[in-house]
Order: sequence, then C-alpha cells, then structure tokens
Amino acid sequence: MKNGIENGYYHEITPNGFGIAIKAGKVLFSKQSDFQKVEVFETESSLGRVLTLDDLMMTTEGDEYHYHEMIVHIPMMQHKNPKSVLVIGGGDGGTIREVLKHKTVERVVLCEIDGMVIEACKKYLPTISCELDNPKVEILVQDAIEYIKDKKNEFDIVLIDSTDPMGPGEGLFTDEFYTNVKNSLKEGGIMVAQSESPFAQAESVKKMYVQLKKVFPICATYTSNIPTYPGGYWAWAFCSESVKPLSYFAEDRYTDIVKTCKIYNKDYHMARFALPNYLKELL
Amino acid sequence: MKNGIENGYYHEITPNGFGIAIKAGKVLFSKQSDFQKVEVFETESSLGRVLTLDDLMMTTEGDEYHYHEMIVHIPMMQHKNPKSVLVIGGGDGGTIREVLKHKTVERVVLCEIDGMVIEACKKYLPTISCELDNPKVEILVQDAIEYIKDKKNEFDIVLIDSTDPMGPGEGLFTDEFYTNVKNSLKEGGIMVAQSESPFAQAESVKKMYVQLKKVFPICATYTSNIPTYPGGYWAWAFCSESVKPLSYFAEDRYTDIVKTCKIYNKDYHMARFALPNYLKELL
Repeated sequence: MKNGIENGYYHEITPNGFGIAIKAGKVLFSKQSDFQKVEVFETESSLGRVLTLDDLMMTTEGDEYHYHEMIVHIPMMQHKNPKSVLVIGGGDGGTIREVLKHKTVERVVLCEIDGMVIEACKKYLPTISCELDNPKVEILVQDAIEYIKDKKNEFDIVLIDSTDPMGPGEGLFTDEFYTNVKNSLKEGGIMVAQSESPFAQAESVKKMYVQLKKVFPICATYTSNIPTYPGGYWAWAFCSESVKPLSYFAEDRYTDIVKTCKIYNKDYHMARFALPNYLKELL
Repeated sequence: MKNGIENGYYHEITPNGFGIAIKAGKVLFSKQSDFQKVEVFETESSLGRVLTLDDLMMTTEGDEYHYHEMIVHIPMMQHKNPKSVLVIGGGDGGTIREVLKHKTVERVVLCEIDGMVIEACKKYLPTISCELDNPKVEILVQDAIEYIKDKKNEFDIVLIDSTDPMGPGEGLFTDEFYTNVKNSLKEGGIMVAQSESPFAQAESVKKMYVQLKKVFPICATYTSNIPTYPGGYWAWAFCSESVKPLSYFAEDRYTDIVKTCKIYNKDYHMARFALPNYLKELL
C-alpha cells in the first residue's frame, strides 16, 4: 500500500509494515514545491485538517498540541530567560505559536526551506499558523544548513522542528550541522530536536544520537504521545553545553504557560525524561 | 472501511475516523466462539503474530510487553507482599506471565469467559501464553461477573485485562461489578483495570471513572504508550480502599523484575501518574 490518500483513506505505513489510517475528506491543497509534495486535506473526525509532506504526516488540527507543546515548553521552561529563539523547519507555525507564549521572548527566527509550507498553513491551518505574522517573528525561507553556518552566540533556544532524515530534512541530521547549531547558542543555551519514533524508527533514532553525542556534552532524550504518528510515541533530543535536564524550572513563567496548554503541566514535564528500558538500551 | 483484514491489510478505525493499519500475512486461526470472533494472523513486520477479537486489536507478539508490563508491575510493585492475584479476561496469558515474575505470588486465578481465546493463544502465541500451564495458575473459563459475586477478602491484586466496554466485556464496566471486586480484595489490596484510550475514546474513559469513583475511595489513573492501539496511548485505573498511588515501592523485588522487562523500570514507574491536562480535565 502506498502512503497518501487512496479510496477515501490516508495511509502512512512504515517500512516495517504498520502505521496509521485516517478517513480523508476534501483535499484543500496539493502541490509539488521545489522540495516536496505539500498537501492539506480535511477529515470528518476530531483530527480536523491534516498537513502532509511527501505523503508523511506532519500535523493535524486535532492533535498538533501533543507535538508543539512538547518541543517548545520542555526546553523553554528549563531556560532562565529565553529572549532569542531559532526554529528550524516548523513552517506550519505551531512551534512559533507556543514559543511566543513565553513573555521573555523578544525575537523568534523561523528558518524554513519551503515557502509553500508556510503559505499553505497560513491559508488552511489558521489555528496552527496564527502567530506567524507576530512582529517578533522573522521568517526566512532559506536552507537552515546555510543560515546557521556563521551564527555565533546568538540564540538562547534552537528548536529543530524538521521532517524525517530523508528528502529536504536529511542534512539536518549531521554532526557538522549540530556543531553549527551549538556555536549559534548563547551561554546556557539549549537545542531541542525532534528525534523520530523510538518504536517504529529505532535505527534512525540510534544513528541520530550517535551524531548528537559527538557534538554536545549534555544530550538527553524525552518522549511523549503523538496520536497520529506511527507507533503513537515520539522522542526529542535535549542538548546543551551546560544545562542538564531538569536542573532548572522557570516557576515565574509557569502559571501563564500551563493555563494555555492541553498537555503541558509541571508533573508531566518532570516525567518526560523517564524512558522505557528498550529506549535506554538503544541510546 | 470495515475493521479486520481486507486486501492484505488489517484495519482498525475508531468511530472518529482514524486508526491503525497493519500489513497482514497468513491467517493462522479464525473462528467464531460463543462470544466473539477470535483471530490470529501473521505479519511480515516486527509485530510478529497478532491476536484480534471481533476485529479489534488485542495484542501482538512485537509490542505486547508495552501493555502487559504496565498492567502488572505498576500495581504489583506497590503492594508489600502480593500472594494471591486474580486476572479477569487476559486469556492470551501475557498478564499471567508478568504476574509470575513476582516471587511472592503463590496463586493466580485467570477468569476468562472465552476458552477459545486461551486455546488459540496457547497454540499460536507461545511467547505470550507460556506461563498458562504454571502450577500456580488456576484457569477458570467462566464469566467473571458471576465468579466475583461471592468472593470476600481473597485477593491482594485484581487485574481487569478486559476487552472494550461492548460485547462480552460490557458487564465489567459497572459499579456493581466494581463493588464485588472491591469486596474480593484483602486489606491493602489494589485493583487495576485497563481504562481505554484517553485520546481516541474519551467518552468511554469518562464514563468508566464515574463508576469507579462511586466504589473506590482511591482511584487514580496512569498511562503509557501502546504502539498498536489507535492513538498509541492507553490508560489504566489504579483503585484501592487504602493504598495511595506511589505511596510504596517494593525495592526488595525490583532488581529481579527490572532485568526481565523491556519497558518497566523505577523512573518509568514513578512517571506514569503524571497526566496531560486534557486527561486530568476529563477525569
């Protein structure tokens, strides 16, 4: 079975032979950009509208907060005063929306290689892309590999909200790239990168952490549930030169943040770095 | 799309319109019992063989430990000396296998309504059913609703490893049944019941906890990832008259247990009762 929509259902099956199926409604947008096929379709379910890139699930209106709250608030709440944030990928805007909930933030750079993703999401996924026009946001339609090369001591937080390590996202999974990200961080800075499915993509996860550990002296993993990704379980890498995971929690920002979240709270935050045995062995 | 196998793929789609798809191989067993359709099929993936009942996913060889370790070790490690255990449902034997890892256990009763499930799993899922012939196990092919009625002060732990609240499992989700389970527990006893998917079956979850809270003064929820259940996320109810969650941890048994587990460890145990906001609101 091919990934994508056929006979009224969207399928995404991992090479391993299992995956997700979603009853698809009207296709609202489907175009080939310079980088990938960008598609938005409706569903009749509480998932609402769905964004896929090259027939791989990116996000849905109905469960996007599972991903966006986790990639953002776990690192942001462990930084004392995050003013300057870089988001790599993340053209749907969900990560930007969550970053801007932190009142300390003065500047967010979105470096997304594919302008068509941004345009499609602005038009068809307004609950996700709603903060892309915020004056604190600088949008760069550019390859992050080039952008990051000469950045030194510029960001408090870098969030790699990328696609899988194939297609346009491939170069974002190398030790050269991670070294440049590390150099772009200020003292006390934290990088978080989406790091694939521990259950469905174990080999990708393993390979990625080998690269990350070459570059960052502190490299931890946290996980959470994503209902619409195959296996329903996702990992993020938490990397820093100086900040150990769970060594700091921004109590001063907590009340404002938690009341806007569907997933995130302090207990949930503290529980995220507890990993199952099979994942600890993999890393 | 119908649940079950068609054109080489097994589908399970929730009423909400999303779910799982698995490339199916040979069907090894498929029969209608007095209660339900019992089916075991092969896959070409690391999921191995799959057991379904009425075309709903029960377990797979490749991810069963995600469920069985969680339903068993979370309560068992919070009991000081579990000697007598009742498993309701659970005819595949995975829960029994995990219970017997605890050396304190002298007797386990398996009360499964459908003997065909037990026979199919003994024949086709040996890595899951492997302890069903252990001399500590009493197998009763019987309706648990009847069995539990006159039991008083008999079990340290009761585990409800049931199907969904429809079909043969329906009567296992009532306050009358829960009251009888409570009466069957010894002092310091704990009941754990599978309590559906918080994301995919929110209404079922809500309804179940209303019933449970009528009966048990202590009623908490814990969650974990199950890759092959729709939404990838599952909840269990932890209920007791006297034992608060995380108030005790059996250090004396821990080393023996953790070395046999693919998921379970102490950090993971401690993190399980931290719930996302949407689930806390639902309860």
